[in-house]
Amino acid sequence: MIRIGIMGYGNLGKGIECAIKQNGDMKLAAVFTRRNPEDLKLLTEGVPVYKAEDAKDHAKEIDVLIIAGGSATDLPTQTPEYAKYFNVIDSFDTHKNIPTHFANVNAAAKENNHIAMISVGWDPGMFSLNRLYASCILPEGKDYTFWGKGVSQGHSDAIRRVEGVANGKQYTVPVPEALDAVRSGSNPEFITRDMHTRECYVVAKDGADKAKIEEDIKTMPNYFADYNTTVNFISEEELKANHAGIPHGGFVIRSGNTGWNGENKHIIEYSLKLDSNPEFTGSVLVAYARAAHRMRSEGMVGCKTVFDVAPAYLCPMSKEEMRAHLL
Amino acid sequence: MIRIGIMGYGNLGKGIECAIKQNGDMKLAAVFTRRNPEDLKLLTEGVPVYKAEDAKDHAKEIDVLIIAGGSATDLPTQTPEYAKYFNVIDSFDTHKNIPTHFANVNAAAKENNHIAMISVGWDPGMFSLNRLYASCILPEGKDYTFWGKGVSQGHSDAIRRVEGVANGKQYTVPVPEALDAVRSGSNPEFITRDMHTRECYVVAKDGADKAKIEEDIKTMPNYFADYNTTVNFISEEELKANHAGIPHGGFVIRSGNTGWNGENKHIIEYSLKLDSNPEFTGSVLVAYARAAHRMRSEGMVGCKTVFDVAPAYLCPMSKEEMRAHLL
Repeated sequence: MIRIGIMGYGNLGKGIECAIKQNGDMKLAAVFTRRNPEDLKLLTEGVPVYKAEDAKDHAKEIDVLIIAGGSATDLPTQTPEYAKYFNVIDSFDTHKNIPTHFANVNAAAKENNHIAMISVGWDPGMFSLNRLYASCILPEGKDYTFWGKGVSQGHSDAIRRVEGVANGKQYTVPVPEALDAVRSGSNPEFITRDMHTRECYVVAKDGADKAKIEEDIKTMPNYFADYNTTVNFISEEELKANHAGIPHGGFVIRSGNTGWNGENKHIIEYSLKLDSNPEFTGSVLVAYARAAHRMRSEGMVGCKTVFDVAPAYLCPMSKEEMRAHLL
Repeated sequence: MIRIGIMGYGNLGKGIECAIKQNGDMKLAAVFTRRNPEDLKLLTEGVPVYKAEDAKDHAKEIDVLIIAGGSATDLPTQTPEYAKYFNVIDSFDTHKNIPTHFANVNAAAKENNHIAMISVGWDPGMFSLNRLYASCILPEGKDYTFWGKGVSQGHSDAIRRVEGVANGKQYTVPVPEALDAVRSGSNPEFITRDMHTRECYVVAKDGADKAKIEEDIKTMPNYFADYNTTVNFISEEELKANHAGIPHGGFVIRSGNTGWNGENKHIIEYSLKLDSNPEFTGSVLVAYARAAHRMRSEGMVGCKTVFDVAPAYLCPMSKEEMRAHLL
């Protein structure tokens, strides 16, 4: 049994816990939290909860520690720190900071003979893999990544910071005509506004100026100004009843040409439709935790990404079974 | 430059040749043929054509030999034979014989310190990878593979063997309602007939009994009897004008559940829409030839499949570039 530890018990931590339950070769060995451990009620029975600050005292009880923190402030410090004591894996998703994060984690992991995997999830993660595979197969082509329909936590937070807003949720939605154009193989050029729209569901505070809220949202730089945005005012009850889920998904499409003169077109498309973003991300993390454990057992150390992991390491089957049943 | 050899110059061999042209780190070093070498006119200028029987005399000129033969009779003997002299790669696609083929190729490759990759293409190949990734991420779920719309060479050959048939082509077509049912997450159970239909375009010989041809096709065991099959009689001119291409494609879909009680649904879908089956397969083979060359350079030998190849080996970028631009 591969003994998994979880650092952090929010939505993602719970998603990881659920995924472990589905994998017969793994068990949840411990959860670590910055909250009071006694306040946590796990879904899994009989699993100890420890203070995050005491984690290193439990290093011998854990084969792989999955760090379920946020990319903004948690992971940049947590992953290099815990890579000193554990084999670790995270879902760091701030694309532009990946090179720096990799360097920090790699140094800590190598120095302490651990393996560390970063940026494991669906984007970065499965989407990245599909961008890589497709671009290697069709070098003369163009990549398109669409996100949604799904809840963007960052944009929902941005709505809630607007004056007069009590609560809100934002959906990122791919533009159907843009998807169709890509699938036709015409290799269209897009500006930001062409690919995604943003749908906002907003609960206004009593007496707030709704016209001003709508204007403040639609003109917000970076978040909304470059998109066609719709703002729907609803009650707190409606928000709870109809927008409580955390769905997401998206599409990675490569359109390319082959033939001596590029005369033949090809479309490679990968898509996800997810009821629960954190549970799916947790499921990806758990599969890669299996790979991390096996790769470390073969002597590998240092920081890895999904690009470095041969697919067979993810699979509980023997290689003979994989060749007979999945190939 | 990675020096590629091609064994066999049919549709697949030509597809490989076209793919090499798109990859700046590779060059076509030689083509081997069982025909008279002087009868072959390559697309690439200045590349020698040798007799297949003399291939081993040119082993020092080739880094990876791509074997572009058929799975029925060519590859079972060719791949183990050439693995004695070359690093090799093939697109062996008789799923049920993969374990035997693997064992034969593995023995020859290991004994001679070569690397060999088998069953590289899209199914087996990219579809297999997607079955593996998706089943590891969503262990509680169900896989569906649909093929088409595309030309099945085997079924087209079967039509042409029917008495009274001068020529013919067969398209495998996924049933749209079946695709929709899978995408809904309802995990339907199908029999063969539910998933695919078979569309035949047949040129009858002068004076042939068309009703009997149609009956013979529709009742042919293994090939057509288990499917809803349509037979369309057309002229040789129409066949040439409208059915000369070799398109194919398909869908690998996994529908699975997560959550403590499996309460959330997820759909992972991978699809291909290919104008040219042999050119796409050739493009996959060439990307894996890069991987084979690199893996051998690191000392790996023996038989490998797509499951054993870390994605980074396929990509001409440095790992730093991949992390910065594709992750």
